[in-house]
Amino acid sequence: MGGDHGPPVTVGGVREYLKRHGGEGVRFLLHGDEKALAAEVKKAGVGEVCEIRATDKVIAMDEKPAQAMRRGKGSSMWNAVETVKTGEAAGVVSAGNTGAMAISKLLLRMSAKGLERPAIVASWPTLNGITAVLDVGANITSDAEQLVDFAIMGEAFHAAVHGSTNPSIGILNVGSEDMKGHEDVREAATILRDNPFGLNYHGFVEGDDIAKGTVDVVVTDGFTGNIALKTAEGTARFISTLMKEALTSSMQAKAGALLALPALRQMRARIDPGAINGGPLLGLNGIVVKSHGGADAKGYGNAIRVTVDLARSDYTAKVGANLKRLDAVLHSTPSEPVETVS
Amino acid sequence: MGGDHGPPVTVGGVREYLKRHGGEGVRFLLHGDEKALAAEVKKAGVGEVCEIRATDKVIAMDEKPAQAMRRGKGSSMWNAVETVKTGEAAGVVSAGNTGAMAISKLLLRMSAKGLERPAIVASWPTLNGITAVLDVGANITSDAEQLVDFAIMGEAFHAAVHGSTNPSIGILNVGSEDMKGHEDVREAATILRDNPFGLNYHGFVEGDDIAKGTVDVVVTDGFTGNIALKTAEGTARFISTLMKEALTSSMQAKAGALLALPALRQMRARIDPGAINGGPLLGLNGIVVKSHGGADAKGYGNAIRVTVDLARSDYTAKVGANLKRLDAVLHSTPSEPVETVS
Repeated sequence: MGGDHGPPVTVGGVREYLKRHGGEGVRFLLHGDEKALAAEVKKAGVGEVCEIRATDKVIAMDEKPAQAMRRGKGSSMWNAVETVKTGEAAGVVSAGNTGAMAISKLLLRMSAKGLERPAIVASWPTLNGITAVLDVGANITSDAEQLVDFAIMGEAFHAAVHGSTNPSIGILNVGSEDMKGHEDVREAATILRDNPFGLNYHGFVEGDDIAKGTVDVVVTDGFTGNIALKTAEGTARFISTLMKEALTSSMQAKAGALLALPALRQMRARIDPGAINGGPLLGLNGIVVKSHGGADAKGYGNAIRVTVDLARSDYTAKVGANLKRLDAVLHSTPSEPVETVS
Repeated sequence: MGGDHGPPVTVGGVREYLKRHGGEGVRFLLHGDEKALAAEVKKAGVGEVCEIRATDKVIAMDEKPAQAMRRGKGSSMWNAVETVKTGEAAGVVSAGNTGAMAISKLLLRMSAKGLERPAIVASWPTLNGITAVLDVGANITSDAEQLVDFAIMGEAFHAAVHGSTNPSIGILNVGSEDMKGHEDVREAATILRDNPFGLNYHGFVEGDDIAKGTVDVVVTDGFTGNIALKTAEGTARFISTLMKEALTSSMQAKAGALLALPALRQMRARIDPGAINGGPLLGLNGIVVKSHGGADAKGYGNAIRVTVDLARSDYTAKVGANLKRLDAVLHSTPSEPVETVS
């Protein structure tokens, strides 16, 4: 029921997913208003793989997370997360209210002990493919342990969803030298450098390394990550506004733009937010993927793709094993060797 | 002597400055290699307003700041900063080694008590003109007092250099609501909200507000500011690379690009880094402006313009008075009313 457009986009997303990836081995439980969902399922022709779980209760997009949690029980969002908890569903995808995070945390609990809230990962288009950047907004301050949590989860995410083998990991910093930055990034770097997780740790990276694609996974606290992401979005919008102004500023420019249009459209497709829509809430006992509220059916279809990829991969097992190892590294007493504990 | 190109750019910068702004009331002391400087002064035809202060000692661009400081005495950079200390010069501009910051701090001392290092301000092109963003790299962690220091200095900088009256100020955060973000930004917001500085405080702003030009001054810690700036630069370079690829991808696209070229060039001029080159080191007892090492003569001329504007304005007096007021607000005992103390 969620998102700016509701069932036309979420059920349309199922249709888009099936069109691109086929329906083998996938079934969808649709939670929400029975009539609205049934109409969309019929329209989209996806009845064969869908089952409607009716509920009248819907959390509005503008409700505060605390409110969403309090009166959430029995809502479409609550019921959807509950199917993950019971194991009936392998994952849940929602374009709804950010209360999804509070409800997920309440029902599923955190698997990453160091985290207060699930981390949000952004799939960032770069000159080199796609880089996973996390956390982009959930955890406002992050100590070294949390940053290592992000590295572990981001690595498994990138491998599962973007198909990389042995993804490289960088920690976002103000310089690449070892002594740069504050204590938390330096300590996280130390843990990752002599790491027992088998991760491909690259070192510190700077802001401009993100779009360069220097590494596959960029780790940062949620405050810096959120600001980096929104600054990049703002910059892209700024340039695109100037460009539109320039290309409509004279008859000659307009003629040039017309000729260049097919090439520019192709370029646009490469940075189409729909194609990278779908960010999991990382660190929960269960797969929960958040679609952008404004996504269209194609974008929502991609969020479904991310959910299926995560559920089918060894993501959960790999993250579980590495978080356990991290816990042993950080919290074992010197007399207990790490190997024994893990 | 500094920068990637040395005297041809620094002396060329004087020529460019004079061409745009005239030489009334301005004199230049050029510190460095006598022969190299004299040749450039002759070539640029700027002998009338220039005086050479000869020294053989030059700090190389690749020397570490600590090294630059240790063996800096008598170097062109040291001598230049010293003329500001003695009052012979109203300001210094350098494209040299980052050791300039260490030497400036050593010779001039900080005026902003809360700061460990001078803050660096970036003049950021936006849809709304130019926004000053600070700190973009010097102070890695910033408490509430430092953030307020940045607000005070950024405001005076924007008024002096970008000609605004009553510039608006925002604190960079992950959301605009009062309860968003960590303790330091929330405390800084509280101080600024019931501020005794007469500043035009807008509230929290987000990453995408920078390029929108929502406010004239964006305040943030040096870690986040540096990453935001470099992320924006990386994003701009990413888009420009994709665009070049797109516009050379076919004969048709090339023809279109050719037609649109004059308009695109005009657009480029608007985000030309040379036109916004020159960032002061804020918080020192004296005006020190840093040019980008790779700037050309036109860019260096703009750094000179920034220095002259700061020196001619009421920047120093205004910042001094407001820092004093802040000190009274933060460090006065309850029994001494703020009014009496300031």
